[in-house]
Amino acid sequence: MKEVVVKYVARKPKLDRPIFIEGLPGIGNVGKLAAEHLIEELNAKKFVEIYCKDFPPQVFINRDGTIKLVNNELYYWKTRKKGQRDLIILTGDYQGLSSEGQYELSDTILNIVEALGVKQIFTLGGYGLGREIEKPRVLGAATSRNLVKKLKKYDVVFRENEPGGGIIGASGLLIGLGKLRGIEGVCFMGETPGYLVDPKSAEAVLRVLTKILDINISFSELQRKAEEIEYIADQLKELEGLSKKGEERKDIDYIG
Amino acid sequence: MKEVVVKYVARKPKLDRPIFIEGLPGIGNVGKLAAEHLIEELNAKKFVEIYCKDFPPQVFINRDGTIKLVNNELYYWKTRKKGQRDLIILTGDYQGLSSEGQYELSDTILNIVEALGVKQIFTLGGYGLGREIEKPRVLGAATSRNLVKKLKKYDVVFRENEPGGGIIGASGLLIGLGKLRGIEGVCFMGETPGYLVDPKSAEAVLRVLTKILDINISFSELQRKAEEIEYIADQLKELEGLSKKGEERKDIDYIG
Amino acid sequence: MKEVVVKYVARKPKLDRPIFIEGLPGIGNVGKLAAEHLIEELNAKKFVEIYCKDFPPQVFINRDGTIKLVNNELYYWKTRKKGQRDLIILTGDYQGLSSEGQYELSDTILNIVEALGVKQIFTLGGYGLGREIEKPRVLGAATSRNLVKKLKKYDVVFRENEPGGGIIGASGLLIGLGKLRGIEGVCFMGETPGYLVDPKSAEAVLRVLTKILDINISFSELQRKAEEIEYIADQLKELEGLSKKGEERKDIDYIG
Amino acid sequence: MKEVVVKYVARKPKLDRPIFIEGLPGIGNVGKLAAEHLIEELNAKKFVEIYCKDFPPQVFINRDGTIKLVNNELYYWKTRKKGQRDLIILTGDYQGLSSEGQYELSDTILNIVEALGVKQIFTLGGYGLGREIEKPRVLGAATSRNLVKKLKKYDVVFRENEPGGGIIGASGLLIGLGKLRGIEGVCFMGETPGYLVDPKSAEAVLRVLTKILDINISFSELQRKAEEIEYIADQLKELEGLSKKGEERKDIDYIG
Repeated sequence: MKEVVVKYVARKPKLDRPIFIEGLPGIGNVGKLAAEHLIEELNAKKFVEIYCKDFPPQVFINRDGTIKLVNNELYYWKTRKKGQRDLIILTGDYQGLSSEGQYELSDTILNIVEALGVKQIFTLGGYGLGREIEKPRVLGAATSRNLVKKLKKYDVVFRENEPGGGIIGASGLLIGLGKLRGIEGVCFMGETPGYLVDPKSAEAVLRVLTKILDINISFSELQRKAEEIEYIADQLKELEGLSKKGEERKDIDYIG
Repeated sequence: MKEVVVKYVARKPKLDRPIFIEGLPGIGNVGKLAAEHLIEELNAKKFVEIYCKDFPPQVFINRDGTIKLVNNELYYWKTRKKGQRDLIILTGDYQGLSSEGQYELSDTILNIVEALGVKQIFTLGGYGLGREIEKPRVLGAATSRNLVKKLKKYDVVFRENEPGGGIIGASGLLIGLGKLRGIEGVCFMGETPGYLVDPKSAEAVLRVLTKILDINISFSELQRKAEEIEYIADQLKELEGLSKKGEERKDIDYIG
Repeated sequence: MKEVVVKYVARKPKLDRPIFIEGLPGIGNVGKLAAEHLIEELNAKKFVEIYCKDFPPQVFINRDGTIKLVNNELYYWKTRKKGQRDLIILTGDYQGLSSEGQYELSDTILNIVEALGVKQIFTLGGYGLGREIEKPRVLGAATSRNLVKKLKKYDVVFRENEPGGGIIGASGLLIGLGKLRGIEGVCFMGETPGYLVDPKSAEAVLRVLTKILDINISFSELQRKAEEIEYIADQLKELEGLSKKGEERKDIDYIG
Repeated sequence: MKEVVVKYVARKPKLDRPIFIEGLPGIGNVGKLAAEHLIEELNAKKFVEIYCKDFPPQVFINRDGTIKLVNNELYYWKTRKKGQRDLIILTGDYQGLSSEGQYELSDTILNIVEALGVKQIFTLGGYGLGREIEKPRVLGAATSRNLVKKLKKYDVVFRENEPGGGIIGASGLLIGLGKLRGIEGVCFMGETPGYLVDPKSAEAVLRVLTKILDINISFSELQRKAEEIEYIADQLKELEGLSKKGEERKDIDYIG
């Protein structure tokens, strides 16, 4: 079995100078939420399933009792608007477990999308702050100064030494390895507390991306999810508050 | 040395549309107990030994002082009943230690059994609940809705989002990778506390499987083992009870 | 670079039905001590160095300031006694770090020694008891019942289910993989507390081995080392005793 | 994707019996600081970038918002002084994460520099003492006794059994694997507390190296960095002092 198995589940599409967008699981699941929302809203079509020996040896069980071997998937979307570019979107259940798997996966995926004409990549992820955020900003990084300059016009924040550790995982590798192939790349990182999945941060990232790509989508589904998460977060805080109170009381009892 | 070494220890059998059954070590050792019991009862014949660089570098010592390099093994059973199907049964000492080894092993085993005509797989495992169970149910997952529908008639339980983490290891991979080859697959998971090996859960799984396969075997040996385990479990609980009492007494002394 | 690099540092010897003996680092370093002592006493000649990507990336510094890349080494010894067999002895700095490396190394070494005519293997190791031992016994395991029977005449102990976990590492793999090639194999495990290197246990193992091989060597160097270790062990115990006394005194103060 | 990817970013240089110098991240970052300083001062020219599946899957973000895939880099420097030798200098962001990656990287790099005529290697690193040092000495290790003798004239310290664990990582492997190819090798280890990056130790190492190579460079930049680090270290100590005092006070309160 090859390290990475690429399975076409639909005919290889003919795309017009497509742009490649990545959103895989990661901090706050920002990238995956964004990519999945984009796929839903555009009704993008799955055409490739990617299996890898560096994914966990695991199948998920669907609601109807059927199984699904964990994978990554490529979708495409053909625009009808003149001047607009087609899209290829990557999402999936996991990133590679090891360094080696990560590199192998990114390299294989670049092979596929480059063969389909991709010259520009946007990778989406989260930037964990470890604290509450009122309004998540979108940080950026890019393969050239020229791109950095262009992106600053779209409210993308570039801050020296942030993120300090750079970008780890597929969001970094795809534009890093892409740069070596002469492919332009941009990474958008939505600020997120990083405790829970963060649809609000995914929305912030997608708003920037769709503005740049001149794509019109609804964000209501992401907003609905954000409300759900907010409700859960509030309940967790309440529970924590109660348990802290309990501890204080215990302390009092003890001291008393 | 190849990642996986396949050694035929008997002539390759000619089988009639055989069904492939897997039972390897895992939670409660349910799958392995079930597969071994089936092999015993049917007097199935070993024909393949599988060695792998991803198994521990280990030999076991048999009772007579001889050694055995850890492996997986394939057995076959030829039915004499008309209309019944032959079986290939997999069991072994270990599953692969790494993701890569797990995939490589499952892929190699599928190559072997597919070449022997297998079009249907049953994988057997445990579903750990972390609590005592009166009567273990058998949960299921399958490669198609049609199969799910059929299995429900055999008291197999399908519950949304259970197991939540899907199926990990060979029981998941074999049907997951098998599905990609167009092989039908079913996984049976016997409920088990998961603390000790669980022959009772293995019996529950085997009862469903043999009913589907229209095979008649005795379960008395599994029942004997279940009684042994129950006895051990009771003794462990007693010990725990004693030690807890001891602690309580200490607490009292201390407070006193 | 290949996973395992075999470097001949002397001409390939012509040996008469040689016996292969392994002694690598492990519990109590019993095997390595035994193999090194045998090499010393027989003045065996190094002819192969084995380097491996699965050894640590490390050089040792010799007393004279020169370096040595960590490796395994093969020595040979040609007997002049009629009817006696030549020997090939393996020792080294490390065993492979991973399962895969262990298998690859053992397989490569078997290729080398099999090409030199080896039909019989003795592997040497320790069996850690975790407690003091007056007189270490030598436990055995072998590839056939016939061998087991023969060895019992040489005071080798065979006990059911001991060691319970079988034999892990090169001592197990070499005879396990050897058995698959039709090579006879025996493992001798010297009982050892397992806390410190154990020349006494190495002597016990070597006494059995040399008796079987009809080889006459001195054990005085191993005995000298055993006295050294005993001295160190005594000092460690004394230190421990002092520190325990200190703790007790503290307890008294505290309670007082 | 190959395990190690070598990318020439400038034409392959023609060098006169070049000497190869390595300085990668490690204890106190001594090697990397030294190699980078040498590159700066000599204005050496980058000609190779090395990417590896065993580096972390990571890009760094530069100050201008552009990204850089983590790598190792080779620089060369051509002397104009007659009789002096040209240099190839290796530095980088990471060493390989696994044993296998370390061996593969060192082997690949030796292939490159050997093809360019290298017959002598100097590797630079730190020797962590875990305590403050007034004036760091430079410890040495070499591939031959002859070299050891020569180096002793340059204030390089050779001490029996120091470092006890030998040399781990690229600094050891490059001269260890080089020795197997018949390449002369020396490792210089600057003593360092090992808590923080240590430009002072890097200076000590470079002073020995440049004296041997008859190269004249300024050390003022390293000295400036050393002052910075000293300032940081002092502040850390002060903080620690304060916090300890706090603890003592608490203790008093408690006891009181």
